[in-house]
Amino acid sequence: MKKPLILITNDDGINAKGLYSLVEVSKEFGEIVVVAPNKPQSGMGHAITINNPLRLYKSTIFDGIEAYSSSGTPVDCVKLGLFEVLKRKPDFIFSGINHGENTSTNVLYSGTMAAAIEGSMEGITSIGFSLADFNPEADFNPSKAIIKDLLTKLLVKKIPSNICLNVNIPKISLNKIKGFKVCNQARAFWDDRFEKRMDQFGKPYYWLTGDFSSSDVEPTMDLFAIKNNYVSIVPTQYDMTSYQSIELIKKWDL
Amino acid sequence: MKKPLILITNDDGINAKGLYSLVEVSKEFGEIVVVAPNKPQSGMGHAITINNPLRLYKSTIFDGIEAYSSSGTPVDCVKLGLFEVLKRKPDFIFSGINHGENTSTNVLYSGTMAAAIEGSMEGITSIGFSLADFNPEADFNPSKAIIKDLLTKLLVKKIPSNICLNVNIPKISLNKIKGFKVCNQARAFWDDRFEKRMDQFGKPYYWLTGDFSSSDVEPTMDLFAIKNNYVSIVPTQYDMTSYQSIELIKKWDL
Repeated sequence: MKKPLILITNDDGINAKGLYSLVEVSKEFGEIVVVAPNKPQSGMGHAITINNPLRLYKSTIFDGIEAYSSSGTPVDCVKLGLFEVLKRKPDFIFSGINHGENTSTNVLYSGTMAAAIEGSMEGITSIGFSLADFNPEADFNPSKAIIKDLLTKLLVKKIPSNICLNVNIPKISLNKIKGFKVCNQARAFWDDRFEKRMDQFGKPYYWLTGDFSSSDVEPTMDLFAIKNNYVSIVPTQYDMTSYQSIELIKKWDL
Repeated sequence: MKKPLILITNDDGINAKGLYSLVEVSKEFGEIVVVAPNKPQSGMGHAITINNPLRLYKSTIFDGIEAYSSSGTPVDCVKLGLFEVLKRKPDFIFSGINHGENTSTNVLYSGTMAAAIEGSMEGITSIGFSLADFNPEADFNPSKAIIKDLLTKLLVKKIPSNICLNVNIPKISLNKIKGFKVCNQARAFWDDRFEKRMDQFGKPYYWLTGDFSSSDVEPTMDLFAIKNNYVSIVPTQYDMTSYQSIELIKKWDL
C-alpha cells in the first residue's frame, strides 16, 4: 500500500513553530509536502489572490521534506499545492498548528480553517489544528501528543469527504486534558474597537482591537469545551444556506 | 419616525459603477453612509486587516452623501463603519452591487458577501447584491429596478437578525426577469488551474484561473435560478457546523 500523501499548510507562515510541530507529528502518518505562506496571513479568511501574480518558492527549511513558500494566502497555498506542486491528489490536508484558537465565529476569519475548508471543497479529508496560545514560542509538545493520538484514531475512519474538522487545543499541560469533545460552533463574537493613532505626518491610522465576548455559549459548543479542558472537534461544512429561513422568506411572496 | 440609516460597502472599490448604482437606488430608502475599499478587493473573503494599520479617508465622490474610502477589506469597511464612522447602529447594511455573480460556493471567496455576513454577525439586517456581469461598465439599470422592487417588499418584513441575504441578478434585460426565487447555495466549484508565466528576470509567477463547474446543481439552488432568469435570494448564515456529522463522529469514541 502506498503511503498516504499529506499536504500541509498554515496561516502563520512557513517559519512558524506551529507549522514545524505539525510537520513533525504528521511525518509518522505519511509522505509530507508543505506549501505555506512566506509571511503571516492570520485573519485572511477565505481570501484568494486574483489581482496580483502569485509567487511560489522552493524551501529547504524542513530536513528531507519537500516544501514551498508562497506569496499568497492559505487558500492560495492549498490551490498551488493541488494544482501546481503535487503529482497526485493528496489523501489529507492538514492546516496549522495555528498560534491562537479558532473556536466559534473565528472560523470565518481564520486562514488556517479556510485552508481546511478549501480542502473539503476539493473532496479531500482536511483538518485544521489550533492551539489556544498566540505566543510565537508557544509550547507545542502537548499539542503534538494530542494530534498523534487523534490521527491514530481518526485516519482509519471514513471522514465524510465534504466536511473538514476544526480541532482546538486548550493551553494546558497534557495531563490536564480531559479528552476529545465533538462540538458545534459557539455563538461568540468580537466586541470590536479601533485604536486610532497618528503617524509621523499627523495623519490618522487604525488598529483593530477588541475582546471576545462569549455570553451565549452552551455546553455543546467548542468554546465551552476548550474552557473546560477538552480538545474540541467541530465538523465544519461550506454550505452557508440558512435552511430554516427559506420557508419563512418564501411565505413573503416576493 | 427616524429615516433608516443604511451603511453601504462593496468589494470592487469606491470607484465601482456597481457601488454608485446601489447608492442611487438605496437613497430612496434611508440615509446613506458609504465606507468602501479604496481599491478592488474581490476574492478577499472574510479577511480582516490585523498586521497592518488601516487607513480611512473622507471621500466626496458621492454628491451630498457621507462617504469614506479605506485601505482595508470589505469586512474592515463594515467594522470601520460600525465602530468608527457611524454615531448609531445602522438599520441596514447593503453590499455591492458586485460586478460578477456570487452564487454557490463563491459566497466563501466573495468580499461582497463577507461584508453582509459580518453585518449579520453584528445583528444588523444585511443584504449582498451581485450582478452576473464582470464588466466594469456593466449596465446596472435593470439591477436598480429589481433592487428597488425587492427593497420595497423586503424592508417592511422582519428579516431574522442572524442571517443575511445573498441576492444574485442574471445578466438579462428587465422584461426577461421571471421574478425572485428563494434558494439554497449550489454545490458548484471552481475547476482551478494556474497559468505559469516568466517575469522579466526569468522567474516564474502564477495567475489563478479556471472554469466554474456546475454538474451537481438542483432546481432549488441559486445557480439554477439565475440560469433560468430568476433573481436568486439565498438566506445565508455563519454557523459552519456540519450538524449531521456530529452524531457520526461521536460514535467513533475518540
